[in-house]
Amino acid sequence: MHDGQKNIKSAEIVTIGTEILLGDLVDTNTAWLSARLATLGVGVYRHTTVGDNRHRIADALKEAASRADLVITTGGLGPTSDDLTNECLAAVTSREMVEYAEARAHVDEMFRRFGREPTANNYKQALFPEGTELIPNPLGTAMGALLEAEGTLFATLPGVPSEMRGMFEETLQPLIRNRSDGSIISRTLWFAGIGESALAEKVQDFLDATDPTVAPLAGQGKVRLRITTRAATQEEAEERIAPVEEEILARLGEYYFGDDDETLESAVARLLQAQHSTLALAESCTGGLLAKRLTDMPGSSEYFKEGLVTYSNESKECLLGVPHEMLAEHGAVSEPVARKMAEGARKLSGADLGLSVTGIAGPDGGTEEKPVGLVFVGLSDAEVTFAERLDLSAWARSRDAIRERSANWAFDLLRHRLEERNNS
Amino acid sequence: MHDGQKNIKSAEIVTIGTEILLGDLVDTNTAWLSARLATLGVGVYRHTTVGDNRHRIADALKEAASRADLVITTGGLGPTSDDLTNECLAAVTSREMVEYAEARAHVDEMFRRFGREPTANNYKQALFPEGTELIPNPLGTAMGALLEAEGTLFATLPGVPSEMRGMFEETLQPLIRNRSDGSIISRTLWFAGIGESALAEKVQDFLDATDPTVAPLAGQGKVRLRITTRAATQEEAEERIAPVEEEILARLGEYYFGDDDETLESAVARLLQAQHSTLALAESCTGGLLAKRLTDMPGSSEYFKEGLVTYSNESKECLLGVPHEMLAEHGAVSEPVARKMAEGARKLSGADLGLSVTGIAGPDGGTEEKPVGLVFVGLSDAEVTFAERLDLSAWARSRDAIRERSANWAFDLLRHRLEERNNS
Repeated sequence: MHDGQKNIKSAEIVTIGTEILLGDLVDTNTAWLSARLATLGVGVYRHTTVGDNRHRIADALKEAASRADLVITTGGLGPTSDDLTNECLAAVTSREMVEYAEARAHVDEMFRRFGREPTANNYKQALFPEGTELIPNPLGTAMGALLEAEGTLFATLPGVPSEMRGMFEETLQPLIRNRSDGSIISRTLWFAGIGESALAEKVQDFLDATDPTVAPLAGQGKVRLRITTRAATQEEAEERIAPVEEEILARLGEYYFGDDDETLESAVARLLQAQHSTLALAESCTGGLLAKRLTDMPGSSEYFKEGLVTYSNESKECLLGVPHEMLAEHGAVSEPVARKMAEGARKLSGADLGLSVTGIAGPDGGTEEKPVGLVFVGLSDAEVTFAERLDLSAWARSRDAIRERSANWAFDLLRHRLEERNNS
Repeated sequence: MHDGQKNIKSAEIVTIGTEILLGDLVDTNTAWLSARLATLGVGVYRHTTVGDNRHRIADALKEAASRADLVITTGGLGPTSDDLTNECLAAVTSREMVEYAEARAHVDEMFRRFGREPTANNYKQALFPEGTELIPNPLGTAMGALLEAEGTLFATLPGVPSEMRGMFEETLQPLIRNRSDGSIISRTLWFAGIGESALAEKVQDFLDATDPTVAPLAGQGKVRLRITTRAATQEEAEERIAPVEEEILARLGEYYFGDDDETLESAVARLLQAQHSTLALAESCTGGLLAKRLTDMPGSSEYFKEGLVTYSNESKECLLGVPHEMLAEHGAVSEPVARKMAEGARKLSGADLGLSVTGIAGPDGGTEEKPVGLVFVGLSDAEVTFAERLDLSAWARSRDAIRERSANWAFDLLRHRLEERNNS
C-alpha cells in the first residue's frame, strides 16, 4: 500500500447514460460490479444513474465522493460530444484535461487493428484529467481514468460490459485487494415449497441477529436466505458462517435445494447427471418454458432427451397417447391427463423419467370449475406415475407468474423424486 | 386534476434492497418504469439504489423529492423486519404509521386465496403513513402507498416485477396522464434483417433532426427507431409524427415488422391468425425457446399446434423422421437436417407450416468445420421446404445471444414466408 493511501472499505457506482434513464437498456454492469466488490469485502451503499448531462454527472460524482472511499463510473467514455465522464471528473477534482500520449497511441493501435482510420473525434478518448493514471483497455479504444482526490479514489470505466469487466479484473481488482483489510463472505441458501413468512418464522432469531446477518428474499415460489459476515481472514469469516448455516439447514432442510447460484433446474440437472438418468418433458400451459430453462444450461443434452409441447388436445392424443375418452371425460387440465402426459413422454422418448405440466395460464380459458391458475404437474418413472394439483389462482392475472411458478413447482417435484430414488 | 396538485413533469426512481447493492439481482424494474415514464412525457433524471437501511433510504427519498415531482420506489414492502420503505416514507414526511383496515383485509383475502394462515408478521403490510392513499395489488399481499407531501408525490411499489407492473399500469399511469400538460407521443418502429449502421445510413437525415427526434437502438438481431415529439394536444403530436413515419417506412419497409410493443413472435401470430394457418416447431439448439416465446402470448393455442424439442439425434430420427443416414452423413447441424426437421414437424402435427432450428449454441461442441454459432433455420409448408444458414460465430461467447438471435431469425424467416403467402 502506498503512503497516504487509505483502505478501500466503501464504494459507490455511478452509471452514466441517457439510454439507461430512458429505459432503453437494462444496466447489468452495476450488478456485476457490486457482486465483485462484495466478494472483495468492499461495502457498496449506493448506486446512482444519471444522464449525459454535465451538471448532473458532476453532482452525482461529488455526492458519491462525499460518502465513499471508491467511486466507480461506467459509461460516457465514448468519442462523441455527449460522452462527458472524464471531463466532469476533471471539473469535480479541479483539474485540466490534458492529452495522454499513451492513450493517443492506444486509439491509433486499436484503429489499426480494426483496419480503419481514426477521425479527429476519436482522439477525444486520449484526453484525461491531469494526474490520472490510465486503466488499460485491451478490447476497445476507451481507456479508463484512475484518480485519487481528497480521500476518494475515482475510476472511470466504459459501458460496454466485456470491456468494463476486463478492466475491472485486470486493474481495479488487484488494486482494491491491495488496499483492503479483512474479508467479507456471503452464502446463499435456496428453498422451495415454503412461503417467505413461514420460512422467516422458523429462523426469526437469525434474521434478528447482526453478525452474521441473515436476509430473506422471495420470488416465484422460491425463497432464499443470505448469510453474510466480515472478518480479518476468509477462514475466520467461514468459521462464523458455518454454524449458522448448519442450524438453518437443520430447521429447513426439507425445503432446501442448493447454494449460491443453484436454480431448481440446475439442482435437477445435478441429480439427473449423478444418477445417469434421462428426462423427457410434456408441456401444455408452460409451452416450452421447462425445456427452455433446462437447455439454458450448457451440457443439457447429457440428460435431456426430448420435450413435447402438446398445446392441442390432438397432439396430447397422437403424440403422448392420452386416450380420447380421458380428455373428453376429465378435460385436458386434469389429474389423469397430467399422469398420462408424463407417462407418454417417458415411454415415447425412452427416457427414465417423464415430467408434465397441464393447466390454465390465462388470462382466458378459465371456468368456475377450472379457474385460471389451476395446474396439474405429473411425474412418471419405472416405479410410480402420479400427479399433483396446484392452485395458482391467486396469480390469475399474471400468465407469466403462473407459468414460472408451475415450472418451479414441476422442477421441485422432480427434485424430490430424484432424491427419493437416491435414497432408496 | 385536483386543486393544488401540480403537473408531473419529472420523476426519480429509488430502488430499495440490499440484494441489489450486493449484485444478487439485476434491477429490471427501473428500466421498465423509466420506459413507461418516457412515453408518458415524464423526464427521469436520476435512478438511485440503496440498501435496507433506515437512514440511507430516508436520505435517498429526501434527495429525490428535492429534485423531482414524482418519486417512485420499488422494493422493501415485504413483511419482514428489513422491509422499511413505508416506515421511511413516514419518517421523511413526518407522519405516523397507522393500520389501514382495507390493507389488513387484503392480506387476509390473499392468504385465504393461497389457502394459508397469515402470521403476525404479515399484518406489517397493513401499516402505512397516515394520509396515504393505497395502491391496490391484485397479485400480492403488498399494497403500495401514494402520498403527496411538500410538492412531491411519492409512490411505493413492491419489487416483484409482475406486481409492480400491474400496479403502475392500473393506478399510477392514469394518475400521471391526468396530471401532465401537453402530450408527448412516441412511436416505435421495429426492423429485422438489417444492422444498426446500415439502417442508420438510410435515415441519417431523420436521426439528425430535432423535432420529431428519431433514435435508433439495436439488440439481438432487431433494430428499432423511436420517433418522439411533444405538442399541446395528442392530435397535433400525431400529425407531426405521421409524415416522418411514412417516409421512414418508404425507405425501410422490407425490414419493418411492426410498431411499439410488436415482437417478431406477435407479428408471426398476427399473420398466422389472419391466414387461419397453424404452426408446428422442431427445435434443437433453441431448446424450447421458440415455443416458450409463442406461448408467452395468450391465445396462442389458436395457431400453435405443437412443439418438439428434439435435443437428441434419436428423437430427431424417431419423432421427426430425419433419416439416420442423413444425420450420419451431414451431422445434426446441417441444411438437409434443418429442412427435414421442419417438414417432419409439419407432417407429424398436421400443421400448415413447420419451422425448425438446429445449431451449435456453445460454449462447447464446436469444431473447425462447424464452429459455435453455426445455425440452420428450416421452413416447410405445402409448397416449399427450405433452410437458411446463419453465422453467429461473432457471439460464440454467449449461448444466450446465439439462442435469442436464432429464434429471432427463425421467426423473421417465417414472417417473410407468411407475407409471401399473403400476397400470392
